[in-house]
Amino acid sequence: MVSETVGLLVKRSTAGGEWRVPPVLLAIAGDSGAGKATLTRGLAAALGPDRVGVVDLDDYHRHDRADQRSLPYTALHPKANYLEIADQHLELLARGHPVLKPTYDHRGGVLGRPVLVEPREFVVVEGLLALWSRRARSCYSAAVFLETPEPLRHRWKMHRDTTERGYGEGEEAEELDRREPDAAAFIRPQAAHADIVVRFAPLPGRPEGLEHPLSATVLLRPTIPHPNLSAIVTPEHAEAVALTLGRDDAGLPVDVLTISASAPAAHTRAVQAQVWAALGGADEVPTCLGALPGGRRSEPLVLVQLLLLYHLIQARQA
Amino acid sequence: MVSETVGLLVKRSTAGGEWRVPPVLLAIAGDSGAGKATLTRGLAAALGPDRVGVVDLDDYHRHDRADQRSLPYTALHPKANYLEIADQHLELLARGHPVLKPTYDHRGGVLGRPVLVEPREFVVVEGLLALWSRRARSCYSAAVFLETPEPLRHRWKMHRDTTERGYGEGEEAEELDRREPDAAAFIRPQAAHADIVVRFAPLPGRPEGLEHPLSATVLLRPTIPHPNLSAIVTPEHAEAVALTLGRDDAGLPVDVLTISASAPAAHTRAVQAQVWAALGGADEVPTCLGALPGGRRSEPLVLVQLLLLYHLIQARQA
Repeated sequence: MVSETVGLLVKRSTAGGEWRVPPVLLAIAGDSGAGKATLTRGLAAALGPDRVGVVDLDDYHRHDRADQRSLPYTALHPKANYLEIADQHLELLARGHPVLKPTYDHRGGVLGRPVLVEPREFVVVEGLLALWSRRARSCYSAAVFLETPEPLRHRWKMHRDTTERGYGEGEEAEELDRREPDAAAFIRPQAAHADIVVRFAPLPGRPEGLEHPLSATVLLRPTIPHPNLSAIVTPEHAEAVALTLGRDDAGLPVDVLTISASAPAAHTRAVQAQVWAALGGADEVPTCLGALPGGRRSEPLVLVQLLLLYHLIQARQA
Repeated sequence: MVSETVGLLVKRSTAGGEWRVPPVLLAIAGDSGAGKATLTRGLAAALGPDRVGVVDLDDYHRHDRADQRSLPYTALHPKANYLEIADQHLELLARGHPVLKPTYDHRGGVLGRPVLVEPREFVVVEGLLALWSRRARSCYSAAVFLETPEPLRHRWKMHRDTTERGYGEGEEAEELDRREPDAAAFIRPQAAHADIVVRFAPLPGRPEGLEHPLSATVLLRPTIPHPNLSAIVTPEHAEAVALTLGRDDAGLPVDVLTISASAPAAHTRAVQAQVWAALGGADEVPTCLGALPGGRRSEPLVLVQLLLLYHLIQARQA
């Protein structure tokens, strides 16, 4: 079992001792349809449901979908969410306490009865505004922002919302327009607070379409200790994975990891195996990583997920 | 306005300063149908909705009524409730933080979406198990147990549940039987943790029926500072209100205040006025006190509610 393999990577204290070690929280922020759930799903599968809890901050929406539509701001606005309560719950979880989490059902767009979330070793917090408040950010061991290019995100969101959430296509297009001012004001600025910014997109000049796996560009800010990638990403794999020094949108220095989807898979997999080994992983890279909706698989996604697993497990051992 | 009158009793700091003073919590525990809501209603009306919040711990039931019926224990059992979450929420409220409180709708017996409870100056916590956990008890400035005699409580509960909660009479009688073991094991033992035990019942030898206002016996334990009743309850009012030294069920010393419903109302009212004055109240005793379901009024209830107001306001000024 994959979860058992990863289990070996964490130093365990005597039986029951885990309760004394507070959970490690990792945040994945990004706009609706950016791919947060896809990224999270692989992490949760690799660690196993006994060890990881997922908190989706959409559950902290204040309003039903129908009520939200009559308001002059969208569900992306901080005041459309119980953010103070979300902060409180994240603080409680980070200290190892259970919370009674509200729920929002996306299929019907309605608020439901709350559910108990008990402390686990790891908590992945995904949300539109996961990096909005300082109080929430102080709870995370690592903060990720998913900066999917807008045309791609619109296409993913349109597909999901019309197939799974009961939206019509025209209605969905209107909703995307309506959300743009709040997305610009509240969602995209959060990238500045991320330790890791992940962007899945076709690399310029590469023969990739939306139907093919996308390449990934990952900004690694020096705000948390990353694995020593310069020892792993060697020139022999340069076509598949490259590490360069760059600047982010604010001009601050960052490491830029580019992972090509069009390189021979063997090269990408060699780097994956080395990150997995650096992480202390025995045997093979878990096969649950890299899974895309519809049964496809992305090698760049595997590597991004391995990097996030690295941060979860390092923080647990720290 | 009554709430403004009582408002004058609390020393206010400069504008907004109230937020720095954590709320005062008062607990009212007792079995289903004991009269918790009636006792609470007068307190809440006297203080006004801006200043007092009411938390009904029935909202922390784990199960819908239908699901609860198939379980081998009743809703009175601690494990049928999210008590750890209730404790957490009481601690947060006691520190002046908001909570997202679950809800349980007694009409349909179903769990609903949670509601935001923001800090107020006072919080009245009523519940079957309000005094069960040490963690909850540590949050209260005063803890009350309503020890209504069983025949009277059954009658009140039967009336309420068949008129307001959709139970049939036979079904309700069966439910009372089913609950008795849990009531004996978990509800009634909480009286030992109360600072004040209130018992509404006909006094022995008095010509009272269930249709008439009941007399009250109030045990005042020396666990919190009570008003100086020996100066107020003088021999001239002995027929209406008497204070004697006694022992509780465990043999521990207590003050016993007996308030007769059959004495001339003028005597009881004179004592009420003196407690109101001791409490710093201007003008008249608030007319919202003493209200019973169905529009009737109880002079003993007025006095009990005044005693509890005394504790709320003293704790706020302490």
